[in-house]
Amino acid sequence: ADVQNSADTRHIAIDKVGIKDIRHPVRVKDRSEGEQHTIANFNMYVNLPHNFKGTHMSRFVEILNLHEREIGVESFKEMLGEMAERLEAEAGHIEMSFPYFINKTAPISGVQSLLDYEVSFIGEISDGKPKMKIKVIVPVTSLCPCSKKISERGAHNQRSHVTVTATTRDFVWIEELIDMVEGQASCELYGLLKRPDEKYVTEKAYDNPKFVEDMVRDIAAALNTDDRISAYIVESENFESIHNHSAYALIERDKEKDQLVDS
Amino acid sequence: ADVQNSADTRHIAIDKVGIKDIRHPVRVKDRSEGEQHTIANFNMYVNLPHNFKGTHMSRFVEILNLHEREIGVESFKEMLGEMAERLEAEAGHIEMSFPYFINKTAPISGVQSLLDYEVSFIGEISDGKPKMKIKVIVPVTSLCPCSKKISERGAHNQRSHVTVTATTRDFVWIEELIDMVEGQASCELYGLLKRPDEKYVTEKAYDNPKFVEDMVRDIAAALNTDDRISAYIVESENFESIHNHSAYALIERDKEKDQLVDS
Amino acid sequence: ADVQNSADTRHIAIDKVGIKDIRHPVRVKDRSEGEQHTIANFNMYVNLPHNFKGTHMSRFVEILNLHEREIGVESFKEMLGEMAERLEAEAGHIEMSFPYFINKTAPISGVQSLLDYEVSFIGEISDGKPKMKIKVIVPVTSLCPCSKKISERGAHNQRSHVTVTATTRDFVWIEELIDMVEGQASCELYGLLKRPDEKYVTEKAYDNPKFVEDMVRDIAAALNTDDRISAYIVESENFESIHNHSAYALIERDKEKDQLVDS
Amino acid sequence: ADVQNSADTRHIAIDKVGIKDIRHPVRVKDRSEGEQHTIANFNMYVNLPHNFKGTHMSRFVEILNLHEREIGVESFKEMLGEMAERLEAEAGHIEMSFPYFINKTAPISGVQSLLDYEVSFIGEISDGKPKMKIKVIVPVTSLCPCSKKISERGAHNQRSHVTVTATTRDFVWIEELIDMVEGQASCELYGLLKRPDEKYVTEKAYDNPKFVEDMVRDIAAALNTDDRISAYIVESENFESIHNHSAYALIERDKEKDQLVDS
Repeated sequence: ADVQNSADTRHIAIDKVGIKDIRHPVRVKDRSEGEQHTIANFNMYVNLPHNFKGTHMSRFVEILNLHEREIGVESFKEMLGEMAERLEAEAGHIEMSFPYFINKTAPISGVQSLLDYEVSFIGEISDGKPKMKIKVIVPVTSLCPCSKKISERGAHNQRSHVTVTATTRDFVWIEELIDMVEGQASCELYGLLKRPDEKYVTEKAYDNPKFVEDMVRDIAAALNTDDRISAYIVESENFESIHNHSAYALIERDKEKDQLVDS
Repeated sequence: ADVQNSADTRHIAIDKVGIKDIRHPVRVKDRSEGEQHTIANFNMYVNLPHNFKGTHMSRFVEILNLHEREIGVESFKEMLGEMAERLEAEAGHIEMSFPYFINKTAPISGVQSLLDYEVSFIGEISDGKPKMKIKVIVPVTSLCPCSKKISERGAHNQRSHVTVTATTRDFVWIEELIDMVEGQASCELYGLLKRPDEKYVTEKAYDNPKFVEDMVRDIAAALNTDDRISAYIVESENFESIHNHSAYALIERDKEKDQLVDS
Repeated sequence: ADVQNSADTRHIAIDKVGIKDIRHPVRVKDRSEGEQHTIANFNMYVNLPHNFKGTHMSRFVEILNLHEREIGVESFKEMLGEMAERLEAEAGHIEMSFPYFINKTAPISGVQSLLDYEVSFIGEISDGKPKMKIKVIVPVTSLCPCSKKISERGAHNQRSHVTVTATTRDFVWIEELIDMVEGQASCELYGLLKRPDEKYVTEKAYDNPKFVEDMVRDIAAALNTDDRISAYIVESENFESIHNHSAYALIERDKEKDQLVDS
Repeated sequence: ADVQNSADTRHIAIDKVGIKDIRHPVRVKDRSEGEQHTIANFNMYVNLPHNFKGTHMSRFVEILNLHEREIGVESFKEMLGEMAERLEAEAGHIEMSFPYFINKTAPISGVQSLLDYEVSFIGEISDGKPKMKIKVIVPVTSLCPCSKKISERGAHNQRSHVTVTATTRDFVWIEELIDMVEGQASCELYGLLKRPDEKYVTEKAYDNPKFVEDMVRDIAAALNTDDRISAYIVESENFESIHNHSAYALIERDKEKDQLVDS
């Protein structure tokens, strides 16, 4: 008999057990292109009741390799259910993280170029009920309001990483979350900028200074108005151009809990 | 007037705001040497009520540079209170992560060498009440019971990272947490091993096979018996020598919640 | 006039100037599938004579975005020439690094699964003459001959990263370089192994122990016999399962220089 | 007899063999404090003639642990010779990389705070002759001349990493190399800045715009005038605040070769 199937007498259940950091090609739905090919890093876990000695590690890898070569993301929820079933588990968890590209148009010249973002789908299933989160890391420009106000000329600015982790009730495009973030930054980034574009983004950032606190609040305000999002964490990390450390802020909100409290 | 001190009308409080990834030399208490010098990476955050526009970023850095050049860890709790006070915040959070060295003795030859571990102190204060966590990442050997059982000779083994994050009611030595982990691994690691030591660790790991599930359960069992620890997360990541991905398991337990449920 | 085009009077030429760490989707030729989609990280540099103040950074990004969405690798050499021309440079350098997948068949059960490798194409052009290198990082199992010999049972083994950087005179499949490495390791890795496969790889590694020195020498011997490869560096890093550091070895050889010396 | 000592018949010498990524506490000479405690990562390699099967891995670790707990840097050259001797090698190579702190004074308020740098000592010995390199990674502010010139207000700026790898004939303080870099940047960084300091650094960077090309040239010019430095590589990577990629430039010079050519 399998070692993994033998009974376990320590009476300690395991919250998560599975495989971590396995890469696989995937296809992801793309608002403008239909879909795009990319490479994802997967973590796949199930729970293990106290009376089972071990899980079946090879089955996780089988699930990844069952489908055609590239895993389509429409099957992400199915994969969650499939995993729980094949592993005979009550609860399951899959994270897939991948670079995602958007073809952006420069603000003045109109030249086009791709910009890359880091995106994760995080799915959890418990007693057959799935719960989905999308996480995007959006690189933007932030320009410091204090530096601008006190200085006779110039203002320090830098690249920042804004991370939104949204629990979704309904389908949300990756592009929609990215738009919410880019709309609130001092300025958004581009791969390719011609001279008049560079003038535009320099002046736009200067005219639109934001503290790390402003960035997370303004994005939180946008997330608050979208009913498809039931909970979120928004973070901003500014890689300060005048220091060797980051400025950081985080807001976390669960709208469903808040409603319970309000009513 | 300061831009940061102006009123904010968005009515959105910020859970954490501060500085991230700033390095500073520290001194840490050491069970055998008295103390050791090392370098820590700090994250320092406070909450910000909805009616304040910004926090005072420079005060965080001031707190790090207030003390003598090396921050002593006996002052970690004080730093938490000091930070909340100087930033006029109800809640504060400090993480400091550093490499920590233990002088280990090889099992047969008795030769001595340093081994490095990654340790974090995580302090949270809320309404004046501090809560402390210690996190250690302990590298160990794991040897696969299944591979041993089915094979006529040999068994695959690998380096694993075991992470324990312990919420402590009382003082716990870093060395005590490391001992709990190393005592449950297939074998512990050493910087320096002579030939008879290498024979010993090879045979010890072979005689002591553990699945990733066994490792987290056996360490959880040890953590369960220590009353100074009120809650913990134990994780193991095995960098499988036969795959290009990791096997992973996690157990989380809050003893105080469990007691409430039991009684 | 452009700031970049003004004359420079410092009399210092720049060896490399350009863009670093820009990601773009690519298609790579695949021995079994025709081609595969993946994501590459690019570094693109040219030289700059002492009398020019600056290069034209946006042109590098233009070259990446000129082609259809995914850059085909058949156009890698063309891109090199195109870059040198558009940037009016005598010398150019492009590195593109990407995860690459091979569909592997488990040794006994025959189940199939993808395994990921890190591959780089490194192209240099100087006075119109291109020079191409392929670099592959191949994860394998290494098993220690000393540990096996001195121990009554078992032997420590671990995951190792073997890196081959080959200067090629002629077309070489990525798969060919990977085969050369996997053929010389204690055992190769797989994504998915069933029980009889796990028995096979455990015993194969045990029967085929290799020091880090053996690994690089045996691969060097294989590279020596391939006339399409004019120079190489082979490295192995073994993430020792009994230590918290790596064992490492490197052999570098330029066959053309050696011939000059020999003749 | 030892497996490692047996003869090898493949006729392939190994350029570098040893240990990689082992950490150890060290003490480094400090221009203002006498010395400072820090943590170093070591790579230690020797060559291995074609007729020896293997090196003695444990001797490398012994050398690190021979001295008192913290390795003093005055003994770095000795360690090189010692390693070559104990490993019976003609050539040896040691790299030690560590965070290094300087207590900086803010430009207007005079408040003091530590800033961290990444420093490496790289020693090579061949036939008893040692050769020493110091490498420093200095984080600075860079402000774009083009963005400033074309924009009516503001200019994009960002954190940059300048790396100098200097081959030294004579003793050079780490602080001297850092000063050369900081003196040529748009502005240097500080841990702690009060309001008038922030005004100063903002305006200084704005008044002192530099392309990535300017930065490496101006530092090269400074390195050219220092006779204690016989060769160098200077690199700058600007983490562009308007893009999601870096601008990069590199100058390499060997003064001794240049002299041969000139004369």
